[in-house]
Amino acid sequence: MSEIKALLFDVFGTVVDWRGSLIRELTAFGKARDVTTDWAGLADAWRAAYQPSMRRVLEGQAPWCKLEVMQRRSLEEICLSHGLSSLSSADLDEINRFWRRCRPWPDSVRGLKRLKDKRVVAALSNGDVALLVEMARRGGLAWDTVLSTELFRSFKPHPSTYLGACDLLGLQPDEVMMCAAHEMDLAAARQLGLRTAYIARPREYGALIDARPTQAWDYSVESLVELAERLES
Amino acid sequence: MSEIKALLFDVFGTVVDWRGSLIRELTAFGKARDVTTDWAGLADAWRAAYQPSMRRVLEGQAPWCKLEVMQRRSLEEICLSHGLSSLSSADLDEINRFWRRCRPWPDSVRGLKRLKDKRVVAALSNGDVALLVEMARRGGLAWDTVLSTELFRSFKPHPSTYLGACDLLGLQPDEVMMCAAHEMDLAAARQLGLRTAYIARPREYGALIDARPTQAWDYSVESLVELAERLES
Repeated sequence: MSEIKALLFDVFGTVVDWRGSLIRELTAFGKARDVTTDWAGLADAWRAAYQPSMRRVLEGQAPWCKLEVMQRRSLEEICLSHGLSSLSSADLDEINRFWRRCRPWPDSVRGLKRLKDKRVVAALSNGDVALLVEMARRGGLAWDTVLSTELFRSFKPHPSTYLGACDLLGLQPDEVMMCAAHEMDLAAARQLGLRTAYIARPREYGALIDARPTQAWDYSVESLVELAERLES
Repeated sequence: MSEIKALLFDVFGTVVDWRGSLIRELTAFGKARDVTTDWAGLADAWRAAYQPSMRRVLEGQAPWCKLEVMQRRSLEEICLSHGLSSLSSADLDEINRFWRRCRPWPDSVRGLKRLKDKRVVAALSNGDVALLVEMARRGGLAWDTVLSTELFRSFKPHPSTYLGACDLLGLQPDEVMMCAAHEMDLAAARQLGLRTAYIARPREYGALIDARPTQAWDYSVESLVELAERLES
């Protein structure tokens, strides 16, 4: 087995709590603007719109565009269906940037710093570079570099994104480990020869769920700190 | 005038002392292997081979390839002309990686950290992503992200590299400042609407030279710390 030289991280759900963060930002926005709706429902609907939008691109039915452009489009419909027809275009732009403010899970900052001591740590997210950079600056995520599927004009789980990331890091797939809270992401990476680490995030969708993995991954942990400990031992 | 939101840095010569670093690494290599030559001359010849190799790509006479591939090719010829015909292919691979070990100028680490407080700081180098990531880890360069012309399969001063970097950062060219010790780099960036900062590096080629700029740039400074001070005032 080759030595693991770099770790690639899924970001939304794996490194940051997108749902809790969006609800917090949306609620604050609603208070400041004196508008109200089911903000948690809006966050969930917005996130749910993401998979079909991406699938259209991956299946060649829509041209690639930045994730923020895609999310801005779905936001318009979702605000209308949540009774928020009074919001201006500038309001929607502001809300769209709430993804940049997603906060790390409590173990993420410390875990990444520790993992970084011995290995390259890089994001590999469907989020755009600009989004990921701002999020890292706000949240203190110490990436060696920010890789985004934007660099390959595609989205995970397209093979070009995992292999493209390995190529940019100058490494063979089996020298790189994909780390994610989502088994689909790991399965796609494993099929290409990358190593895999499953990070359980039982609160990603709010209510506590059983987040045990359904497959055997190279590592299966409950936090990035635990991953660092396991890799060091 | 727009606010400057991100700083892009040329790396070789501007942020790191490639010449002093290469000579140090080559000399140590020669001692360990008991081979000797004019290591400074070899470093200079190797660097000099870089411009014509890139020009062939920019002029469409050669396909794009990673900088390390290009430098590995020129290294073979240069070693032969320096009487180093006994080196193995593995030796040349090792030497080729010395670029990854280039050390920051004395002000670079501190200057970048200070600049990063208020603005995005990213490399924009003709060096490959893998090379720049390893160099940053070794030298403590706190990039928010590593941008490389590799991402655009071109080299500076091709316009696609500067505009591509602005696009990835989600910024307009006049919100981005190119920072370099080389006026050609700055001139190309300015023509596309980027702001410019000239960093004097009078020791880039060893002997002390007059490194005053020949044109008026938005900023002209003698260190990254001075740049941080000027931007804060």
